[in-house]
Amino acid sequence: MDLTNYITQTARAAKDAYFLLSTASTTQKNHVLSLIANGIVANSKSILEANQRDMECAYEKGLDTSLLERLKLTEKNIQTMAEGVLQVMALADPVGEMGEFRTLPSGITLGKMRVPLGVIGMIYESRPNVTLDAAILCLKSGNSCVLRGGSEAINSNKAIATVITTALQEAKLPETAVSLITETDRAGVDVLLQLPQFIDVIIPRGGKGLVQRVNEKARIPVIKHLDGICHVYIDADADAVMAVNIAMNAKTSRYGTCNTMETLLVHQSRAAELLPILQQQYADKGVELRGCSKTKQILQDKVCAATEADWSTEYLAPILAIKVVLDINDAIDHINYYGSHHTDSIVTNNYVNSQLFLRAVDSSSVMVNASTRFADGFEYGLGAEIGISTDKIHVRGPVGLQGLTSQKWIVLGHGEVRV
Amino acid sequence: MDLTNYITQTARAAKDAYFLLSTASTTQKNHVLSLIANGIVANSKSILEANQRDMECAYEKGLDTSLLERLKLTEKNIQTMAEGVLQVMALADPVGEMGEFRTLPSGITLGKMRVPLGVIGMIYESRPNVTLDAAILCLKSGNSCVLRGGSEAINSNKAIATVITTALQEAKLPETAVSLITETDRAGVDVLLQLPQFIDVIIPRGGKGLVQRVNEKARIPVIKHLDGICHVYIDADADAVMAVNIAMNAKTSRYGTCNTMETLLVHQSRAAELLPILQQQYADKGVELRGCSKTKQILQDKVCAATEADWSTEYLAPILAIKVVLDINDAIDHINYYGSHHTDSIVTNNYVNSQLFLRAVDSSSVMVNASTRFADGFEYGLGAEIGISTDKIHVRGPVGLQGLTSQKWIVLGHGEVRV
Repeated sequence: MDLTNYITQTARAAKDAYFLLSTASTTQKNHVLSLIANGIVANSKSILEANQRDMECAYEKGLDTSLLERLKLTEKNIQTMAEGVLQVMALADPVGEMGEFRTLPSGITLGKMRVPLGVIGMIYESRPNVTLDAAILCLKSGNSCVLRGGSEAINSNKAIATVITTALQEAKLPETAVSLITETDRAGVDVLLQLPQFIDVIIPRGGKGLVQRVNEKARIPVIKHLDGICHVYIDADADAVMAVNIAMNAKTSRYGTCNTMETLLVHQSRAAELLPILQQQYADKGVELRGCSKTKQILQDKVCAATEADWSTEYLAPILAIKVVLDINDAIDHINYYGSHHTDSIVTNNYVNSQLFLRAVDSSSVMVNASTRFADGFEYGLGAEIGISTDKIHVRGPVGLQGLTSQKWIVLGHGEVRV
Repeated sequence: MDLTNYITQTARAAKDAYFLLSTASTTQKNHVLSLIANGIVANSKSILEANQRDMECAYEKGLDTSLLERLKLTEKNIQTMAEGVLQVMALADPVGEMGEFRTLPSGITLGKMRVPLGVIGMIYESRPNVTLDAAILCLKSGNSCVLRGGSEAINSNKAIATVITTALQEAKLPETAVSLITETDRAGVDVLLQLPQFIDVIIPRGGKGLVQRVNEKARIPVIKHLDGICHVYIDADADAVMAVNIAMNAKTSRYGTCNTMETLLVHQSRAAELLPILQQQYADKGVELRGCSKTKQILQDKVCAATEADWSTEYLAPILAIKVVLDINDAIDHINYYGSHHTDSIVTNNYVNSQLFLRAVDSSSVMVNASTRFADGFEYGLGAEIGISTDKIHVRGPVGLQGLTSQKWIVLGHGEVRV
C-alpha cells in the first residue's frame, strides 16, 4: 500500500470509529482509560526498552541534547503518565451536556448539546508522552485521533499505542479510535493535512517551525499555538512589593515556557522607584536587561539598549525587555501591537484601570495582580491540556476537554411546523 | 495605488479601527445603529437610484433572472432593512459579558469574558442588503468588517456604505470600522484571503462555488456554509398526523432554502401506512418523488427510482428522495453518511429514540417533532444571522452576534505568583 493510501485509510478508519465513540457512555470511556493506566504501568518495561532504542538511534544521529531530553522516558515518567490518565478519568465528561434552553414564540424549545469535534489529527515532535496525553484527552471527549509523532520517537510511540489498542479491544471500543501513523515519511503529514472529509481539526504541537508548516499546508482548521510574548504592566497605582514579586516570578520561575514574561512595562511615575530594585534582583538571577531610552536613563550601564526587534521577540531565555510607558493606554497599545495575544497582566490597585486592561487587552489570558505563569491547563483546573491556542476562533488559551468539543443546537418540539 | 496595496491598506485600517470599536460602549454602538437606520430611510432615494444603475448594467450584461431578483431593491426592502437595524439594536450586547468564575487552589479567580473576533472579511454576491446586515451585526458585536460584495451590486453597495460611514463619523466612531472594497477586480479577493495579520475570520455568503473557492484560497479561518441536505426520519412510534404535517412542511413551505428537507426516511413498519398518504399530498403540491426499492414496491409507478446520487443531492427544488429504513440506527447511519450535517429531525413518541437521535446525529441542528425549516437565526431568536455554519469548530448552525465573538480567560488575582 502506498503512503497516500495508507494515511487515507487510517484517517477513514478513525472517522468510522468516531461515530461509535461519540455516543459511548462515560462509564465505557472511563473503563478504557483505567485499562490504559494499568497497561502503561504493566508494560513499562517494553515501553522503556523501545524508548532506549529511540535514544540510541537519536544519539547515533547526533541529535542535540535538548531533543534527547524531550525524547527520554524514565520509570518516573511512566508513573506520571499513568497518574495523568487517572486525572483525566476523574474529570467530568463534557459530551452530551445540555443547556441554554429556552422556549420560542413558535412553541419549540431550543437548547444546545456539547458534542465531540470528530477526528483530531495530532502532529507533534519528539516527546513520546504526547502520544498518551493526546489519546486520553481525545477518548474522554469522544473524539477519534490520528497521531503523527516524530520519527525519532517511533519505537516509544508504537509501544504506547500498543497499550492503547489493547485497552480499546478489551473495552470493546473500536480500536481505530486511536491510530498511530507508523510511516514517518514527511510526505505523510502533507497527505494528512489534505483530508477534510475525515479529519476535523489539526493540532500541531512543537516548535514554531512545525506549527507554521502545518498551518500553511492544512486544508483543515488548525488549533495552533505560536509565540508567547507575554507582558507584565506595572501601573501607577501598583503595590510596590506585589509588583516586584510578580515581575520576578513571571520572568524567572522558568525561562523556556510560553507563559513567561518577555517584556516588562512600567508606568513612568514608578520607573525611578522600581527599576533599580528590579535590576538588582534580576542581576542576582543572571537575567540580562534590554531597556528603552528612559530605562537606560535610570539604570545607566546596568541595562543594554533595546532595539525595535526586542519588543516582538520571544526570548525563552534569561533576557528581559523593559519599557517605560506614559500611561495605561500606552501600555495597552504596546501589548496589542507587539504582543502575541497569549497572556498579559497588570499590577494595579486602581479599579478603573483593572477593568480597562481586562477589556482592552486582546489576549487569550488577561490578568490583574497575578503572574503570567498561571496561564496553563493544570493551573486553570482543566486537568490537562492538549495545547495552548493563540488563535481567536473556537478556543483561546489552554485547550482541555471542552476545547475538544463543539455545541450543536437541539430542538424539542411537539409537532411544530413553520408558518 | 495598486490593487494589493489598496486591499492591504483597507484591511490594516479596519484592524486599527477594531481596537477602538472593541471597547466602545453599548450606548455608543446603539447610537451609531440608530443613525444608520435613520440614514437608510432618509437616503432611500439615492440608494434606489444607485440600485437602478446596477439593475440596468446587469440587464445589459444579460445576467439571469434569479440574479436580477436578488439584486433588486424596493422602497419596501429599504423599510425592512431599517427595521432589521433596529432589531439588532434591541439585542443584548454580547461583548464584555463575564461568567464561569471559579477560585482555584492557587488563590486566583478564573473566569471568561466575551470579546469580538476582530476584523471580519465578508465576501458575498449580488444581494446589496448583505452590506447592511453584515455591517450592523459586526458593529454591534464590536468587530470591524471589510466588505467585498459582487461587482454587479457595486453602486447599491457604495450608496449603503456611504450611509454607514456618515453615521460612524457622526457617532465619533472610526469610519474604517466598516470598509467597503470598491475595486471589484476578482484578484482583490485573493489578496484579502491572504492577510491573517489584519483579517481574523472570513465569512463567504453565496453559492457553493463561491464558498469553495474562498475556502480553498483562504489563509485565514473561514466560517462557511456549504450544502443543506436535511432529513426527516419518521420513527416506528411516530404520531401519523404529526409525521405527515412535518414531512409536508419541511419539504413544501419553501423549496430553495438550505433548511428544506431533501430526503425523507421512513421506518419500515410505517411505510405501507404513511407513504401513500404522503405521496398524495406531495402530488398535490407538484413534488417529484424518488424512492428506494421498498418505496417503489409500495408506491409503484407514482415514484421514480432513486439513484445513489439522490441521497447526497441538495435539490433546492420540488423533488424529494424517500428511503425506507430498517430502524433508527439505519436512519442515523444514513443521515451521518449522506447528509451535510445541517439540520435533521426525528418524528417519534419514543423517549429512548428521541434521546439517541439527539445524541448520535452529527448535525448543527438536531430536532425532535419539529420541522427542519425552523433552523434559522430569526426562528432561533438570534435576531439576525450573518450566515449559517456547517463547520464544526467555533460555531455551528445560524451565526448571530454570539457567533461573531470569542471568549478570553480573565484572572483576578491578589498578588499570586506561581510556586
